[in-house]
Amino acid sequence: MSRIRIGIVGYGNLGKSVELGCYQNKDMEIVGVFSRRDPKTIKTRKEGVPVYHLDEVKNMVDDIDVMILCGGSAKDIPTQGPMLAAMFNTVDAFDTHAKIPEYFDQMDKVAKESGKVAVVASGWDPGMFSINRLYAEAILPEGSTYTFWGKGVSQGHSDAIRRVDGVKKAVQYTIPIEDAIKAIKSGENPELSTREKHLRECYVVAHEGASKEQIEKDIVTMPNYFADYDTTVHFISEEEFDANHQGLPHGGLVIRNGKTGLNNEHNQIIEYNLKLESNPDFTASVLLAYARAAYKMNKEGIKGAKTVVDIAPVYLSMRTAEEIRREMI
Amino acid sequence: MSRIRIGIVGYGNLGKSVELGCYQNKDMEIVGVFSRRDPKTIKTRKEGVPVYHLDEVKNMVDDIDVMILCGGSAKDIPTQGPMLAAMFNTVDAFDTHAKIPEYFDQMDKVAKESGKVAVVASGWDPGMFSINRLYAEAILPEGSTYTFWGKGVSQGHSDAIRRVDGVKKAVQYTIPIEDAIKAIKSGENPELSTREKHLRECYVVAHEGASKEQIEKDIVTMPNYFADYDTTVHFISEEEFDANHQGLPHGGLVIRNGKTGLNNEHNQIIEYNLKLESNPDFTASVLLAYARAAYKMNKEGIKGAKTVVDIAPVYLSMRTAEEIRREMI
Repeated sequence: MSRIRIGIVGYGNLGKSVELGCYQNKDMEIVGVFSRRDPKTIKTRKEGVPVYHLDEVKNMVDDIDVMILCGGSAKDIPTQGPMLAAMFNTVDAFDTHAKIPEYFDQMDKVAKESGKVAVVASGWDPGMFSINRLYAEAILPEGSTYTFWGKGVSQGHSDAIRRVDGVKKAVQYTIPIEDAIKAIKSGENPELSTREKHLRECYVVAHEGASKEQIEKDIVTMPNYFADYDTTVHFISEEEFDANHQGLPHGGLVIRNGKTGLNNEHNQIIEYNLKLESNPDFTASVLLAYARAAYKMNKEGIKGAKTVVDIAPVYLSMRTAEEIRREMI
Repeated sequence: MSRIRIGIVGYGNLGKSVELGCYQNKDMEIVGVFSRRDPKTIKTRKEGVPVYHLDEVKNMVDDIDVMILCGGSAKDIPTQGPMLAAMFNTVDAFDTHAKIPEYFDQMDKVAKESGKVAVVASGWDPGMFSINRLYAEAILPEGSTYTFWGKGVSQGHSDAIRRVDGVKKAVQYTIPIEDAIKAIKSGENPELSTREKHLRECYVVAHEGASKEQIEKDIVTMPNYFADYDTTVHFISEEEFDANHQGLPHGGLVIRNGKTGLNNEHNQIIEYNLKLESNPDFTASVLLAYARAAYKMNKEGIKGAKTVVDIAPVYLSMRTAEEIRREMI
């Protein structure tokens, strides 16, 4: 059986995790890693993975079935997406929620012209959480859906802290408020403010001589990032930071509390819950399942942009439809 | 906007719940309930729902968009399914797992000939649990998936107890073993025997003068149903039974404990969890979402049998694709 030939575009945390994920998917092989950096400076997690400059993709149109875009949503994907969808099936984890419709339309146009499939905004949120919000609402029209994130590292918030004067190293954990979740699970449909859903907990290594009081104040009052939350700041030593705060755990849950019955007398609770020791590994795993979907759909003649809700679950699986009906339904 | 015209075939617990579910789906209307019983003997949950004898369906081919099959999987659906799929889009909750492939093939043939869509084996297990088993395995190829049911009423097991000599009323609750779930959530991948996954708890009202000792023995040693489980039998009064054991709660969870990383060093846990105060209401709610999917797919020219894994999530939603991308992804 010929394997699905994967290209990895971008080699940060996510690109590295996609490489590792490929080794677990026996129907896939890595053709190469593509980067804007000098290929000689890139060392892949396992030896023997070819590394190319991104400019070379145009010479490899016949060698790659699906390109997985592992760059950032702010700058990389908006330009790399359309450029690559003109040549390849693509999968990305574009996660700027407000810009998804516009990006989708752009990718749809390019992919329809090239005859390829472009899976956009995949991963877990957007991605698996989006699917679960949709299924839960469609099944239980009367009710409320809540999304909680964490406990986990928010890379955007950690970056924001690192830009504060006097901060040497920092990490921020987003923590869902258990009492809110408990209320929902007991059948209540509370209206929750931002502050009532999540806490923000920061671990900071300060530069020598920096004012911890000032750092703390700068963090907790930071608009958009922290001002609307109850935020705690812990100052720790660099040793402790390096020993205990290097991982990228994350997770969260989508929960819908719906009502059914003649007088809405029955509580019906649907919960989808992720506990992830590695956020980039999990995101990569989702992207790879959707790479398989893009490949299979394109083989059937399907083209254009798709989000996760447009793709039937069967396309993600290594198994045949018959096998699924026999063993998994 | 014209609404989706629903027919309900069979009016037991599930049929009644489908009626109630229709009132929550603003894009649907009930055309009628169809039964093999004399229509005059059937009183619908709300007044004004037309009730017809099942023989009349053939005269209503142009009046109904989707027929929802609410009969039993043992005898009703295997005959009613093909008969109705020859005339209508259909949705059913056929749940005899071993016979799903054969039933699917039969429905696929009929529906392809009639140009209709037949959604088979929908509901929550088979149904939403099947989807979640598939997604979780596709995303995390290395790992184990577990399905637990309960706490909830197993109607098959309750029926089995009621057939025991001396039993007047009975209900059986299936209870997942918390220690097993805890082990999985902590990252272990245990091999679990039947006995290690679920307990069976029975509440029995005995006939006057019946031997409780004999009833208990007959239950706990019953092959297939109870012999492989730790089963407890509680004898209670009829008053207590009527007051506390009339509901049909259920639920359960699908959990996958997967591993990622260079050396499988990261635990990644995906859990889908249902807590249902009314099992038939929830099953009905799933069937209605798939009735919308059947209707929308057939409008696009799609025909043949589908299981839940063959249907893209977007088809279940009342929202447009644009709205979903803007608000839910």
